[in-house]
Amino acid sequence: MHHKDLKIKLPRLMDKIQKLGQIGALPGGGVCRLALTDEDKEARDLLQQWMKQLDLEVKIDELGNMFGIRSGKSSGPLVMVGSHLDTVGTGGLYDGSLGVLAGLEIVETLNEAGITTARPFAVANFTNEEGVRFTPDMMGSHAYSHTAELENMLNAKAVDGSNVSIRTELERIGYNGQLPCGDLELAAFLELHIEQGPVLEAEEIHIGAVEMVQGIYWTEYIFKGVSNHAGTTPMPLRKDAGYAAASTAQFVREQVLKTGGNQVGTVGLIELSPNLINVVAQEARVIVDLRNTDEGALIQTQTALDAYVQRISKQENLSYQKQELVRFPPVQFDKSIVSKIEERARALNYSVKRMPSGAGHDAQMMARLCPTAMIFVPSVGGISHNIKEFTKEKDLERGCNVLLQTAMDLLNLG
Amino acid sequence: MHHKDLKIKLPRLMDKIQKLGQIGALPGGGVCRLALTDEDKEARDLLQQWMKQLDLEVKIDELGNMFGIRSGKSSGPLVMVGSHLDTVGTGGLYDGSLGVLAGLEIVETLNEAGITTARPFAVANFTNEEGVRFTPDMMGSHAYSHTAELENMLNAKAVDGSNVSIRTELERIGYNGQLPCGDLELAAFLELHIEQGPVLEAEEIHIGAVEMVQGIYWTEYIFKGVSNHAGTTPMPLRKDAGYAAASTAQFVREQVLKTGGNQVGTVGLIELSPNLINVVAQEARVIVDLRNTDEGALIQTQTALDAYVQRISKQENLSYQKQELVRFPPVQFDKSIVSKIEERARALNYSVKRMPSGAGHDAQMMARLCPTAMIFVPSVGGISHNIKEFTKEKDLERGCNVLLQTAMDLLNLG
Repeated sequence: MHHKDLKIKLPRLMDKIQKLGQIGALPGGGVCRLALTDEDKEARDLLQQWMKQLDLEVKIDELGNMFGIRSGKSSGPLVMVGSHLDTVGTGGLYDGSLGVLAGLEIVETLNEAGITTARPFAVANFTNEEGVRFTPDMMGSHAYSHTAELENMLNAKAVDGSNVSIRTELERIGYNGQLPCGDLELAAFLELHIEQGPVLEAEEIHIGAVEMVQGIYWTEYIFKGVSNHAGTTPMPLRKDAGYAAASTAQFVREQVLKTGGNQVGTVGLIELSPNLINVVAQEARVIVDLRNTDEGALIQTQTALDAYVQRISKQENLSYQKQELVRFPPVQFDKSIVSKIEERARALNYSVKRMPSGAGHDAQMMARLCPTAMIFVPSVGGISHNIKEFTKEKDLERGCNVLLQTAMDLLNLG
Repeated sequence: MHHKDLKIKLPRLMDKIQKLGQIGALPGGGVCRLALTDEDKEARDLLQQWMKQLDLEVKIDELGNMFGIRSGKSSGPLVMVGSHLDTVGTGGLYDGSLGVLAGLEIVETLNEAGITTARPFAVANFTNEEGVRFTPDMMGSHAYSHTAELENMLNAKAVDGSNVSIRTELERIGYNGQLPCGDLELAAFLELHIEQGPVLEAEEIHIGAVEMVQGIYWTEYIFKGVSNHAGTTPMPLRKDAGYAAASTAQFVREQVLKTGGNQVGTVGLIELSPNLINVVAQEARVIVDLRNTDEGALIQTQTALDAYVQRISKQENLSYQKQELVRFPPVQFDKSIVSKIEERARALNYSVKRMPSGAGHDAQMMARLCPTAMIFVPSVGGISHNIKEFTKEKDLERGCNVLLQTAMDLLNLG
């Protein structure tokens, strides 16, 4: 049969999503599978088992990135589909997992149809995309596409203050592979992902053809003051690190609204020390997450934030340390692949729109190496990084079919 | 010899301060002796041993308050001197301990001089003055002077979320005593304490004759929103509990400065959940500490705060819970005892000034039962609730001598 008539099998995909979702499952739903924990190892082991059952050649690189390779008629550059299996502390069943399991579903569909493609095909699981336990996020794909930074990534220490590093945790769970990072030659990269935002659902559109990813800046500020008695220290004599942290979070909101456009800003992490009711905080840590599709506006917002942190620290007689944890500029995807995604969606009679990605994804790293694009499916309520994260089965099926069709186009080229 | 010539012995006092300071000692100095922990038990055991060595009759009440009683010619109401041995998480060697050990030093001075006083004398250690691990603070003296609330105090759960209560911890460390709380009849109560503020040092004054304690309000606010992806959730669609918490801390500072006068306000505790870089916080907890000598102004500040919390929650589409952890109005001390303290200080040729207390103290509870006052000595740099808390030995000696002389006046009455 002609490959335009090939369809994935939803029950097969759902079965894998459910089985994987039991690893690190949280009470009330959702999962916690932080990068390189025991739960991540268990998920990796299951993926490896599935890859082998589908006769894929499993390769693991120095940073623990996992690849399942299906050979083609040529031994040339391969078409890669992938995402990540790690999650945030309160993650859902779809963020990341969908993009990896959809890759397996494509392999299963091709195997079943007895198709040998012109180009080889690979399914990828990238290490530490979420960046919750180790920074930066998108670490595996970052190192894959910026191999000079591999050593920094391997030496990254856990942000929870424990003394483990990517290197020691990879060794601990047995995923410190032999394949040199970035070694596989790529013809194209595709990532299917849930939108994690409210747009597709609100506009009742089936498929997002993602043409760009907004820029992401993560900056840590640690304020240092003097802990003192909350009742006896007159306000003018205070060096209150906690106040500076709170005031910074307040400023982020005000500045983001002032910048407007696509600018978003979040302070999701605040830590006071000693964090006691009647003690002025001696030290406070905040991490600010700023994102925008417009790099100029993003830089302006960050500059205003840095100036405010300096101002509030001076006003409160504090010292502070600033650390740039992440600086990702906006990324444009490959126009011809984005057009293919639109064509294939329309050919399948699905509604489709071009849109930017608000979240960071491995695809934005891979875009540096080869023609790349992403496919979004709707997130109910736009909710994600939350145990309530959910995407309807019909939408998962549509997204996976568009991924299959687009991949087939690329696989049969050359 | 006439009691006006009696003096305490500084080396003896310092020796006890140092020995007690080794219990719960922190690296770099200071101590952590949270109420009813193993460290608190060890400190209580040492105090009990010292009391017995001084031939005091040791009594422990239902809430773990400890009393060492020295009999007088009469069996009537006794003159009590005391404070607390528990500390904050980053406490010093003097806050609380000084007031208890000074009591022992008075006993030792009287024993040595072979003096039998008209009234009996008691040294007290009150349970959980700091209120860090269990609220409210000043718990032991509160229950002693408001005996109707004993049951609530015994049932108070640890704020760290663990399931222990005052009752279970008292049983665990063996300080659930037999003496009914509030049973001892009092003629007067005195408390010697470090100022914990910068005033005496700044004005180079030896002794503070404390004529009042400012009012203290502690209020907990728990904001509840929706955790969501930091990159894909447009600002207008957010329900960011973390932002509300930070904004509340910012408001506290602004409102406190607006109120002016003696108003102080602190947000020393902020907790976000899940507290992750790229996740909008679903829940946030802040505890606001407001204090003022002027009750009207204190109530106005609290009212403005409550209104702001309601406003910001509505604006951010959050729900919230409010809990009044502490509501202590300002307390006036006994004018005649405050005058005595001034007289005795001047007779000893120490400089002295009347002043309010910025911190809460057990004495403010005891003032409900009997004529009460406090004596302050300077804190270097005004620093306290900090491992750098320090008071010069000379100042400790002066304070202890004024306590001795004032106590003698009261002990020989009636």
